[in-house]
Amino acid sequence: MYEQLGVIGCGLIGGSFALAMKRAGLVKRVIGYNKSPSTTELARRLGVIDAGAESALQAVSGSDIVLIAVPVSATESTLKAIRHLVSPGVLFMDVGSTKGDVIAAARRALGDRASAFVPCHPIAGKETGGVQHADAALFEGRQLILTPEPYTDVQQVQRATDVWSALGATVLKMRPHNHDAAFAAVSHLPHLLAFAYFQAIAEQPTSRDLLSLAGPGFRDFTRIAGGDPAVWRDVLLANKREVLAQSQRFRAALDRLESLMEAGDGSALEAALKPIAEGRNAWQAPGSPAPQAVPSGRPAGK
Amino acid sequence: MYEQLGVIGCGLIGGSFALAMKRAGLVKRVIGYNKSPSTTELARRLGVIDAGAESALQAVSGSDIVLIAVPVSATESTLKAIRHLVSPGVLFMDVGSTKGDVIAAARRALGDRASAFVPCHPIAGKETGGVQHADAALFEGRQLILTPEPYTDVQQVQRATDVWSALGATVLKMRPHNHDAAFAAVSHLPHLLAFAYFQAIAEQPTSRDLLSLAGPGFRDFTRIAGGDPAVWRDVLLANKREVLAQSQRFRAALDRLESLMEAGDGSALEAALKPIAEGRNAWQAPGSPAPQAVPSGRPAGK
Repeated sequence: MYEQLGVIGCGLIGGSFALAMKRAGLVKRVIGYNKSPSTTELARRLGVIDAGAESALQAVSGSDIVLIAVPVSATESTLKAIRHLVSPGVLFMDVGSTKGDVIAAARRALGDRASAFVPCHPIAGKETGGVQHADAALFEGRQLILTPEPYTDVQQVQRATDVWSALGATVLKMRPHNHDAAFAAVSHLPHLLAFAYFQAIAEQPTSRDLLSLAGPGFRDFTRIAGGDPAVWRDVLLANKREVLAQSQRFRAALDRLESLMEAGDGSALEAALKPIAEGRNAWQAPGSPAPQAVPSGRPAGK
Repeated sequence: MYEQLGVIGCGLIGGSFALAMKRAGLVKRVIGYNKSPSTTELARRLGVIDAGAESALQAVSGSDIVLIAVPVSATESTLKAIRHLVSPGVLFMDVGSTKGDVIAAARRALGDRASAFVPCHPIAGKETGGVQHADAALFEGRQLILTPEPYTDVQQVQRATDVWSALGATVLKMRPHNHDAAFAAVSHLPHLLAFAYFQAIAEQPTSRDLLSLAGPGFRDFTRIAGGDPAVWRDVLLANKREVLAQSQRFRAALDRLESLMEAGDGSALEAALKPIAEGRNAWQAPGSPAPQAVPSGRPAGK
């Protein structure tokens, strides 16, 4: 049981964490800080936080657990602003979708105090962000990746593991580089592709008619193109090399399918599509009704 | 009220149509034909059809409404097999995702009798095909596109409109070329992209680990990569020119976003992503809780 949670950035993830911690009875009081006072006011009105803070430092003051839930490029300035309150007596975590840049930022901002900071990434999201969509059940059945460094305090890592597990998440440890490479492939690239695809539709003169005809396949394929532009700006820049490398792989696969179309080769095209469809249908999303068992920590250390 | 529905191809769409017609009390008896006798047997056991037919012709014999729900490349041979039973006294419809090629096939197979045939495309689908996923509610709140030709019997068009409307679909008329161009953009291209993307993941040496880390964004983005390979082989070949043209537009949009990433231009990248996210979030899928009103027939005649 924690006395006070300080949330810096009360968006979908920060707000959901606050609600989940309260519902689980893990925290008595939540204080929140946002760049925009109107967000803080909304979070307070919705009962996501108990009180607003005037600064990031004030949100940390008196808190024994702190969640930093800002776009990753704001991590360094946030940590700098709170650095002299960072100590092993308080659990500090972030929720950024990239980890290599966050860890480097923590090292620069905190120096030796970076041992108190546990880099985290919850694999959870929704069509639309904002504290108004915060959901106490957002992390249930989802994965939570921890990417501690050798210098990270082991007790802090254990406390982070306990907290996220208590919220219903499956906790996995990975090396930061493995994390960033893997999520370039399964999360960051699909976001880039969905953004590019929606843009290509939206810029056509008949886009209104096109969008009026789009059905459930289009809806699901483009859902992630509705993601927060500031968050995805940061992720795409922070993990640029890995995302662009994955994009090259994607373009090569697209080239091959288009060549089969150009050649009008129905048998070869069907032979190419069949294992894809089978592979996709065999895959089970974490958190879906029949989740695939993932041994804790397996992807780490590769 | 129809006496007997003949379904040629009892998959997800054919099976769902049969169930929906029965539930709506629009048909007394359903007879089904499939290339594979085991599919017919399964459809019968599931109560989707009342009896199996030995041939497409036998499924049409005695029927006053016929649904052809086969991959589009099989439309011509199917229509040839039943051609001497095609007459204006029986309503003939297909459900193909492309219409230009289906109409050309109908003209070749049926000659003047093509007036009895109403080309249809229900904008409805599911993650996985097969009669075992047939659903009487599949067409509720969805759009149904009709692409009649000037020679199509107007009474048949009216009957088709009445049937699909009674199953809960919103019926829209479009010219076949406009249909194929629009669906290349909002349905066929995203399927191609999802297939290519899943393939690019699956062929990596670490694909098992990657897939074990993938979350809800990946799940939705790749759902349509689980589509029937025979159906999508046909669609991608039948509508090749339009799909490849849309792919060029997509690649150009992807190039622009990647250039902003390469340049590390955060402000320009955010400025590019913002209207995309806003546009996507403003769009409402037909059949979603707050569907967008689409005046009947609006996209036709452009």
